[in-house]
Amino acid sequence: MERKQNRKADRGGKLKVMCLGGLEEIGKNMTVLEYGDDIIVIDCGMGFPDDDMPGIDLVIPDVSYLVSNAHKIRGILITHGHEDHIGAVPYVLQQIDAPIYGTRLSLGIIEGKLDENPPPNNPELYTVEAGDVVNLGVFKAEFIHVNHSIADACAIAIRTPVGIVYHSGDFKLDVSPIDGKMMDLTRIGELGREGVTLLLCESTNAERPGFTPSERTVGSSLERIFSQYENKRIIIATFSSNVHRVQQIINTSARHNRKVVILGRSMINVIGAAAELGYVELPDGVLIDVSEMKKYRPEEITIITTGSQGEPMSALYRIAFSEHNQVRIAPSDVVILSSHAIPGNEKLVGRIINALVRNGVKVVHDSSEDLHVSGHACREEIKLLMALLRPKYLMPIHGEYRHLYANKDIGEFMGIPSDKIFISDLGKVLEIDKKSAKFSGEVPAGNVLVDGAGVGDIGAVVLRDRKHLAEDGLVVVVATVNDYGEIVSGPDVVSRGFVYVRESEELMARVKEIASQSIEKALTRRTRDWASIKNSVKDDIAKFIFKETKRRPMILPVIMDI
Amino acid sequence: MERKQNRKADRGGKLKVMCLGGLEEIGKNMTVLEYGDDIIVIDCGMGFPDDDMPGIDLVIPDVSYLVSNAHKIRGILITHGHEDHIGAVPYVLQQIDAPIYGTRLSLGIIEGKLDENPPPNNPELYTVEAGDVVNLGVFKAEFIHVNHSIADACAIAIRTPVGIVYHSGDFKLDVSPIDGKMMDLTRIGELGREGVTLLLCESTNAERPGFTPSERTVGSSLERIFSQYENKRIIIATFSSNVHRVQQIINTSARHNRKVVILGRSMINVIGAAAELGYVELPDGVLIDVSEMKKYRPEEITIITTGSQGEPMSALYRIAFSEHNQVRIAPSDVVILSSHAIPGNEKLVGRIINALVRNGVKVVHDSSEDLHVSGHACREEIKLLMALLRPKYLMPIHGEYRHLYANKDIGEFMGIPSDKIFISDLGKVLEIDKKSAKFSGEVPAGNVLVDGAGVGDIGAVVLRDRKHLAEDGLVVVVATVNDYGEIVSGPDVVSRGFVYVRESEELMARVKEIASQSIEKALTRRTRDWASIKNSVKDDIAKFIFKETKRRPMILPVIMDI
Repeated sequence: MERKQNRKADRGGKLKVMCLGGLEEIGKNMTVLEYGDDIIVIDCGMGFPDDDMPGIDLVIPDVSYLVSNAHKIRGILITHGHEDHIGAVPYVLQQIDAPIYGTRLSLGIIEGKLDENPPPNNPELYTVEAGDVVNLGVFKAEFIHVNHSIADACAIAIRTPVGIVYHSGDFKLDVSPIDGKMMDLTRIGELGREGVTLLLCESTNAERPGFTPSERTVGSSLERIFSQYENKRIIIATFSSNVHRVQQIINTSARHNRKVVILGRSMINVIGAAAELGYVELPDGVLIDVSEMKKYRPEEITIITTGSQGEPMSALYRIAFSEHNQVRIAPSDVVILSSHAIPGNEKLVGRIINALVRNGVKVVHDSSEDLHVSGHACREEIKLLMALLRPKYLMPIHGEYRHLYANKDIGEFMGIPSDKIFISDLGKVLEIDKKSAKFSGEVPAGNVLVDGAGVGDIGAVVLRDRKHLAEDGLVVVVATVNDYGEIVSGPDVVSRGFVYVRESEELMARVKEIASQSIEKALTRRTRDWASIKNSVKDDIAKFIFKETKRRPMILPVIMDI
Repeated sequence: MERKQNRKADRGGKLKVMCLGGLEEIGKNMTVLEYGDDIIVIDCGMGFPDDDMPGIDLVIPDVSYLVSNAHKIRGILITHGHEDHIGAVPYVLQQIDAPIYGTRLSLGIIEGKLDENPPPNNPELYTVEAGDVVNLGVFKAEFIHVNHSIADACAIAIRTPVGIVYHSGDFKLDVSPIDGKMMDLTRIGELGREGVTLLLCESTNAERPGFTPSERTVGSSLERIFSQYENKRIIIATFSSNVHRVQQIINTSARHNRKVVILGRSMINVIGAAAELGYVELPDGVLIDVSEMKKYRPEEITIITTGSQGEPMSALYRIAFSEHNQVRIAPSDVVILSSHAIPGNEKLVGRIINALVRNGVKVVHDSSEDLHVSGHACREEIKLLMALLRPKYLMPIHGEYRHLYANKDIGEFMGIPSDKIFISDLGKVLEIDKKSAKFSGEVPAGNVLVDGAGVGDIGAVVLRDRKHLAEDGLVVVVATVNDYGEIVSGPDVVSRGFVYVRESEELMARVKEIASQSIEKALTRRTRDWASIKNSVKDDIAKFIFKETKRRPMILPVIMDI
């Protein structure tokens, strides 16, 4: 007890709230709560690299703050099993030890990842259910059921010495969910009545008016389309993690006496795990292996596949471009995209559609067909959450700045004073005590790039070089120089990604000449100052090439001495 | 006359129709009609490179077929002044001589381009008006007024020996256009009564139901938003070529007693040209220079700017990121995006919005605000065109395959038999005689990449190298070898875009060792077979690096001899 009092005196009894990961979406991948000697982490996700990051496989949070405070960490709490909330677990467990708490489906998916990429110490995974409370140092975390585009999603209400912090997770309100379990508004209302200090509220759809439709509306659309195309084989692409969607497709197929084939690695993995854990029910005999397909007529088959985002290695992509070993498309097929293209993926999705229609395949993807609903709360749902919780402070999370500010507007509309709404940033620390809340200082935060086996060895310089190489290509100039400052071999010139060498022989010959002159000139001036020789070669060649071609390839001089 | 009869006997009196340019959008940039010794070209546009083409500035049609048939070319007809219909004119006039026919605004914009990039021979430009007929060999081309998102747009009806060919251009039906001139349905109906052999019909919006709303609807939205934000400075971004939109913004500003500042090079150029030619009316004193802005209060100013697609060099981008010399944003600003993001540009636009909201600026961009309408015909308008023309044959153009096939569906709905609808491809030749139409053969076609001053010197190999360099970077290994097969200098290892060298010293030292062993081994085996030495160095290093890092950088060995 004494220790605790000391700590309070030291720290002034302040709760710190900070977002550690997330590319443009603040707080999407990881949120951290710290009070005295206790830290809890909410979510541990990865980001997908954007166009500025060529060759990068994935992006994980910079957890150096957690590493230097490893002794304080009481646990990692997982809201749901989407990649942007769990994808960094294997990487972070390489750096810190911490028990992980999550619902069954979330932990099921995490286990698969840890099997592929095991951490140094045996990970402690604790399964929780909505309603459970976990004690973690000064914190008591209660998992609360919400609706989302993956089963078993939760918000987390954390009792702290400065009051209740409610982390919304990703959520929507679905009054007619497929699994029958509506978001637990009653419990949320009870917390609100008790008094909530801080709401960390997701902002993805904060710009969108109204309510997000129920997942069940997709069922009616599927029914209509299955009836319309009863004479065709149906190939339908969606997110593998959307187990309720997959359930609806399976049910509709069964009603229409179709067998179901599951295609694509992540679809097979996730649906396999979900079926094992009881999140997907498979009517007897409905599932068949792709190899059994030939026993049935096309109109007796539904294929559920990955590739709804146009991913070039996905099953749907390979089907569309006739690269799939087991599925050949034909005009007797209809392809249904039960998804929306995530911004940035429109062109990839378009390519698949073009390839399919060229092969005479009917593609149903129109937004007017109601084939997809969002998993995130629109404005009215966010208002409802705020109305139930009536939080003292609001910190919008899970969104780009535009979404955070849109969420702030909602908070103001709901009566939260503008100065009690905090738009945070990576590493920014929100400090809350019993009286007030304010931003105070920063901790190391940001993103770590993963490329192949390398974690964090790619930084701004490497990325800048990659972009330069991509846009203008490269010219390497090599020469060997002897002790007397004479060129004894070369200069040789090699280019890549610059021009067709065969059609540019004259240009390259001139580059060689200029390199030769430049080196000789530099050698007479001050022999052996390699950096300066290289710089003048670089400058001379760059100038010449720009004059001739209006391009600026990377010039890489290598001068060797013997 | 005798010559003509001979030719007919030779050629069997066939009209050839082919699309020469266009990336994913068939026929967007250039369509060619050939009959006997006469060729006419419709449009001469450029494409914008996509993600697969790093460093490429623009893409123009491969006109080698025109070059080898230069003596036949009677003229280039321009439907309207958008880049994808005129942008290649300066490049094509470097290769062929041909008179150009277009309306005043189209030619006005082309003249600006030719001034910057003059062709070897003085270009012949002929101004036409809707209703004019131009005789071009066996062809008689009639320009027909249509509505579109640029003023002075036309369809072209071409009388050929096998009947009338109607090229729709880009069009929409606007019953309440800003300039008062509705698409000339009457003339189109007359042509239909006379009998149309082939309709070349644009397909951009063929997937969208209904009618495209009138440009005038944007006016009411502007009025509403100007009233709502009467206390703020208004910054509004749109396409510079949409002169009717700019006119509406100017008119609304004048009504609200605001001065107008025009920002951005292309906005200044196009609106300047349009005002000079009378396509934009400027109420007296409404336009001020950006330097005069400080004389007015923020709420007395409207700024019309480029950057609605998030272009990183645009005025709006520089304003949003506080890099603009003359415009500083403040919370007293509202930014209106009077545009839709073209697929692929969503992320760029999002970045601008994020930067603005972070600075406390209100951004109005919601699609629910009716701040933009398309310039292209939706399904019901396409049906109307088909109903008036009742063409014997249909060839959908101006669209990706998905759009062409959607247009085919419309044609079938309108009663055109499926075997009389032709989905073409780049270079594919549609042959039409008085009795029938069929695809027959191909001509060279495709796209030529322009990078800096180089036209066509970047091909598949260079692009593949650029992508490889972008994703994995580069390792250069250099060694000098003497006559006795001994390494006398090096190997030196230089990398770019691969790993942080400082943190990877050990790795690079190992690469050096392996290179050394590999060269020595190869030299003892068969001295002086440079290709084989290089290959074994490449293989050994690639294998090592992949094992260590799971990456595959480009390995570039340079072995020099003295």
